[in-house]
Amino acid sequence: MNSRRCAACKHLRRRCPSDCIFAPYFPSNNPLRFAYVHKIYGASNVAKILDDVPVKCRAQAAETLWYEAYCRIRDPVHGCAGMVSVLHQQLNIAEWQLATVKAAIKNESSNVEPLLDPRPLPPHYI
Amino acid sequence: MNSRRCAACKHLRRRCPSDCIFAPYFPSNNPLRFAYVHKIYGASNVAKILDDVPVKCRAQAAETLWYEAYCRIRDPVHGCAGMVSVLHQQLNIAEWQLATVKAAIKNESSNVEPLLDPRPLPPHYI
Repeated sequence: MNSRRCAACKHLRRRCPSDCIFAPYFPSNNPLRFAYVHKIYGASNVAKILDDVPVKCRAQAAETLWYEAYCRIRDPVHGCAGMVSVLHQQLNIAEWQLATVKAAIKNESSNVEPLLDPRPLPPHYI
Repeated sequence: MNSRRCAACKHLRRRCPSDCIFAPYFPSNNPLRFAYVHKIYGASNVAKILDDVPVKCRAQAAETLWYEAYCRIRDPVHGCAGMVSVLHQQLNIAEWQLATVKAAIKNESSNVEPLLDPRPLPPHYI
């Protein structure tokens, strides 16, 4: 029945077979989700990628394909790899800040060490 | 001439036209680079994506397409989006550590403030 076709089969204007590889991951109520992956990868490549992973992993694979297609449509030059680059930069900055603060603490604590870690009194005080 | 065909035209077993969209970004000495994007996106989708961006951005677009295809072949379930997820987690951890260390410093400095910032002596010491 037409009303039971998944978003992919609707988009491709074909019957939706009972074992449709797309149906569980591209429901008819979200046509954009399939339109995105279709535009970037093409239906046959999406089907091949889904078919090559275990059934239990296909929902995750469809989700990440959709995410990458969405990123590529939003930023055709950098795509999802642009996000990786931005996050690498942010991580480098955060790790540098953390290392700087830790070094400052180490330096500070070595300066105030006598106050925090009492040493034995020198002999003439005993 | 055959020897001047780019990696894409060699892979697709076709003549390499003088205005080949692939040639500047998929040189013949790196056949795997095109094989990866061909496997994941298909040649026509790669050509469409490259054609849709300004010429000066195409090298970057080809590089990110290659990177995403490489990630998808290495990890067919998560692809490049998996890297985004891992980097998000690492960034969250680094930012949490930074916030924790900064809070500890603030707390510590408010505790040791009297030692570092001498207050006026109470009246009976004057």
